[in-house]
Amino acid sequence: MPQLRTALAQINPTVGAIEHNADLVVTMTRHAADRYAHLVVFPGAALTGHPLDDLSEQQTFVDAAERAAGSLAARLDAEGLGSIAVVVGHLSPDPNSADPNRADPNRADPDSTAANRAGAGRRSLAVLYGGRVVVQQMAHRAPADHFSIARLHGADVALALGEDVWPDSNCAVSVYRESAPGVLVVLDSQPYRRAHTDQPLERAQHRARQAGTSLVEVNLVGGQDAVVHDGASLVVGADGSLLGRAPQFSDGCLIVDLDLPVGTASVPERFAPADEEVGTHIVRRTLLSEPALPSYPGEPGSVSPALNPTAATYTALVTGLRDYARKNGFESVVLGLSGGLDSAVVAAVAIDALGADKVHGISMPSTYSSEHSRTDAAAMAEATGLNYREVPIAAMVGPFIESLGLTGLAEENVQARVRGIVLMGISNQEGHLVLATGNKSEVAVGYSTIYGDTVGGYAPLVDVPKTHVAEIARWRNAAAVEGGDRPPIPSSSIEKAPSAELRPGQQDADSLPDYALLDALLEARLERGLSGAELVAEGFPAPTVQEVLRMMRVAEWKRQQYAIGPQISEHGFVRDRRMPVTNGWRERM
Amino acid sequence: MPQLRTALAQINPTVGAIEHNADLVVTMTRHAADRYAHLVVFPGAALTGHPLDDLSEQQTFVDAAERAAGSLAARLDAEGLGSIAVVVGHLSPDPNSADPNRADPNRADPDSTAANRAGAGRRSLAVLYGGRVVVQQMAHRAPADHFSIARLHGADVALALGEDVWPDSNCAVSVYRESAPGVLVVLDSQPYRRAHTDQPLERAQHRARQAGTSLVEVNLVGGQDAVVHDGASLVVGADGSLLGRAPQFSDGCLIVDLDLPVGTASVPERFAPADEEVGTHIVRRTLLSEPALPSYPGEPGSVSPALNPTAATYTALVTGLRDYARKNGFESVVLGLSGGLDSAVVAAVAIDALGADKVHGISMPSTYSSEHSRTDAAAMAEATGLNYREVPIAAMVGPFIESLGLTGLAEENVQARVRGIVLMGISNQEGHLVLATGNKSEVAVGYSTIYGDTVGGYAPLVDVPKTHVAEIARWRNAAAVEGGDRPPIPSSSIEKAPSAELRPGQQDADSLPDYALLDALLEARLERGLSGAELVAEGFPAPTVQEVLRMMRVAEWKRQQYAIGPQISEHGFVRDRRMPVTNGWRERM
Repeated sequence: MPQLRTALAQINPTVGAIEHNADLVVTMTRHAADRYAHLVVFPGAALTGHPLDDLSEQQTFVDAAERAAGSLAARLDAEGLGSIAVVVGHLSPDPNSADPNRADPNRADPDSTAANRAGAGRRSLAVLYGGRVVVQQMAHRAPADHFSIARLHGADVALALGEDVWPDSNCAVSVYRESAPGVLVVLDSQPYRRAHTDQPLERAQHRARQAGTSLVEVNLVGGQDAVVHDGASLVVGADGSLLGRAPQFSDGCLIVDLDLPVGTASVPERFAPADEEVGTHIVRRTLLSEPALPSYPGEPGSVSPALNPTAATYTALVTGLRDYARKNGFESVVLGLSGGLDSAVVAAVAIDALGADKVHGISMPSTYSSEHSRTDAAAMAEATGLNYREVPIAAMVGPFIESLGLTGLAEENVQARVRGIVLMGISNQEGHLVLATGNKSEVAVGYSTIYGDTVGGYAPLVDVPKTHVAEIARWRNAAAVEGGDRPPIPSSSIEKAPSAELRPGQQDADSLPDYALLDALLEARLERGLSGAELVAEGFPAPTVQEVLRMMRVAEWKRQQYAIGPQISEHGFVRDRRMPVTNGWRERM
Repeated sequence: MPQLRTALAQINPTVGAIEHNADLVVTMTRHAADRYAHLVVFPGAALTGHPLDDLSEQQTFVDAAERAAGSLAARLDAEGLGSIAVVVGHLSPDPNSADPNRADPNRADPDSTAANRAGAGRRSLAVLYGGRVVVQQMAHRAPADHFSIARLHGADVALALGEDVWPDSNCAVSVYRESAPGVLVVLDSQPYRRAHTDQPLERAQHRARQAGTSLVEVNLVGGQDAVVHDGASLVVGADGSLLGRAPQFSDGCLIVDLDLPVGTASVPERFAPADEEVGTHIVRRTLLSEPALPSYPGEPGSVSPALNPTAATYTALVTGLRDYARKNGFESVVLGLSGGLDSAVVAAVAIDALGADKVHGISMPSTYSSEHSRTDAAAMAEATGLNYREVPIAAMVGPFIESLGLTGLAEENVQARVRGIVLMGISNQEGHLVLATGNKSEVAVGYSTIYGDTVGGYAPLVDVPKTHVAEIARWRNAAAVEGGDRPPIPSSSIEKAPSAELRPGQQDADSLPDYALLDALLEARLERGLSGAELVAEGFPAPTVQEVLRMMRVAEWKRQQYAIGPQISEHGFVRDRRMPVTNGWRERM
């Protein structure tokens, strides 16, 4: 029975940095070679990073990505790694990009942007072997696009990109079921989603049973703007048994020995691909090597546990921030440390991402700041060792109020905006990335001062509702205690009633529904898409529904100017949402 | 020979405001009835507004739009307008929205957002007649979707949405050529594009000749966030002759008498649609009325001239701002009036959009402001009558510099950010919309202070390069002189060297290439998509190309936080662009 030592190379590429990403592939392949792997599988988009957005339309980029697969094959061979089959996700020129819609500059229908985005490049995969690209396969769009099976050491390895495997109909799984390969290898680029804790495994088990083969799924890891990939690459047997799983949010190489059935289909001459029809699809077979290797003692794969949703969300925030900073050349961050919950959690995330010595927390008390705000901020600094300073803002706020005669909300907002200037000034002077500390609940209903507390290049909590922020804080403190460390977040920051402290005695509850109610309503609206009437039918008070929907509509212009941050929910609040600002729609309820 | 008095009802709906938009339809139909029209054609998306973006996925909105067509038909009939055939663009539930991709919450391929966006609603058109919806037709996506021909007073009227007519292949024109209707009526929702001055007419003439019929094309007018529709609805004879054209950027009703061939195809019983196959397509015929009306003396249609590109761009800016303000409930605007070109042009646009008494220009001199800056700003106020005040910022800047010890760029940025706070403070206190005055050249290369001069809810010049801003200013002044008015923009604001005045003697030319060079390079890059190597081959100096591409990459995070404003160029800088912020791609040149 053929054996294949398979390495799941869970890497963290940077969008656009093709040469850097190729270096990662070489390093990880060398690592796999040291452990005698025969097959090394990288994630989808490993060479280009993901998501590419408009970069996939730039012809020079597409060409560079395509060329990179060839030069990488040559380089691996030159470094003595040519006898290992290396599977990588990359980008190829799309033969169908001469789309008639693209040719007509006058076309302005609602789908034209999407049509353009389908653009010049199409996601693809390649098998690099013996110094050459021996298999090329594009993301499947039309019957003419082929699926590939490579015979390696006597076993049939079927190849697919993630998007070819997950749709319910017309997918690679049904095609490969007919072709009976030994293993189905999937190059994936799935982002983390809080709601999906158990789904990737269940889905893989379902697919393995459907295809009747074992399944190797390798996923990206790491942050890229609003997306965080969580890795958790896995191997599942044909019977659905979990044979190996890589850790979440951590790059590395998982080795699994596969025992595979002998490939019995007739194969063409070595490296000369031959096509066969399977239903309306084309399967292309390529012979890399035959027969099976002499039998060797296999090692069992390791199975990392899946993190619980709170731990996973926190780790996604840490990963997102760490990679945003690192990939954009920032060594340190600065944020306003108000003593409140949001800024404390963002500081904790930043400390875990970059180290306390790289985090600068600025307390900016105004005349309305409570004593406990200052002591809570200072306590966090003391507990964690982050860089802490106090910049009282009264002397900066005064001249605006006096010059302009501001009162009420206008006066409140000046305080927040002065803080924004202070943070940006320190950033400009010292080179730190500014973190915006607003949470999803605030962003959704616009409970923030634009150009004030919204200031920043990255917003860790933009997709985390307030109630989850509190949950995360409690979990992080508990994890510290469990590990014998001091809890980073002052418990009074978690337990006290939220307040913006922009006027005497102000509390969030004066302007907003209770956060438990607000967050439940936002979840029902944004994640489940309930209408106003459906929300009321679920038991939300009609006046609250009406007011929250109004606030969301009015806040849309602010949300569109908000910093990017990691998407956590299914229907994220950064990349995925495109609502009109000018919007006369009013739901009846 | 059948005659049809046809009204081209060029209206300005608001996205989402279905009832308001229905009111516009009734008002305009009544107006057309007063002029004895038999057929009233409204634009695509007349009932819903355009573009809808994610609103088209909200089931309650789609259902409301669908219902609105029926109630509008009943209302028109109740108001005695039921004997006029009214064609409106709206939105219908998409029978294919049960997309398997939508059912799988784990799917995260690059196209999933677009797939979701294809969502619950599909653009459609309806003919309202005799109190009923007698014809319904969806935007064409599959062979099963039908095209419609209505027999009205003995003539065959073929119907299409804009997106069904403009693609080069597989379009309604080829289907209708076979069916030989008397006239092809197109409901369009084309945005204004500077480069398209002559194209809409040429394209319509081409289509009319292709279809072998006369062509009535009705377009939306007005601003909606980043989109400005320019109207210019038109009627072209089967021979390509221009029979009528509505003015650009102005709502209204153009009446054209059409002499049409007698419809000879056999038609079914009244209001009972019958399908026939034309090639692989389906044409659905519906009889509304027969035979032809008694002959009457027709009136020639009026032909409004097309504006030149500079006049059209300026008018697009005025339209965009006027509608953004009006549709969002703002009566007045505030902006920083620096004495420079950009703010002067934005002020002129605002005055033309809202009236000088609704425009508040704030001069905010610093210690580095030149004397001519203050006198130029004051001169503009004097020439136009806008509300003008001076708020010196030295007293507000000082405390930041002193508290934080800021120097260099950090000190420069504080000045811009203090101005931002002043404008937002006045806005909060007095209720004006804040206008950001940055131009496209600045936004592209990030020559701006984020949260400073970028502050604002609407940015009229975001898609207008600096050299075009100067051209617009000269044109506006010349137009004033021609009309016997005082030129609004001080000529020294146009002619002096651009400067941010954030340090002594600073000029834009110290940090940026000459604007003529920069704008040519940006145009080649953004509109024509040239690579770095292609830019150098076109004669742009390699170091300049490299530096500008670097600046654009580094500015991307700021651009994404910038206010929306009207798209003028083909590949706009607001809606259309989706570049990664974290981006390791470096072009070789």
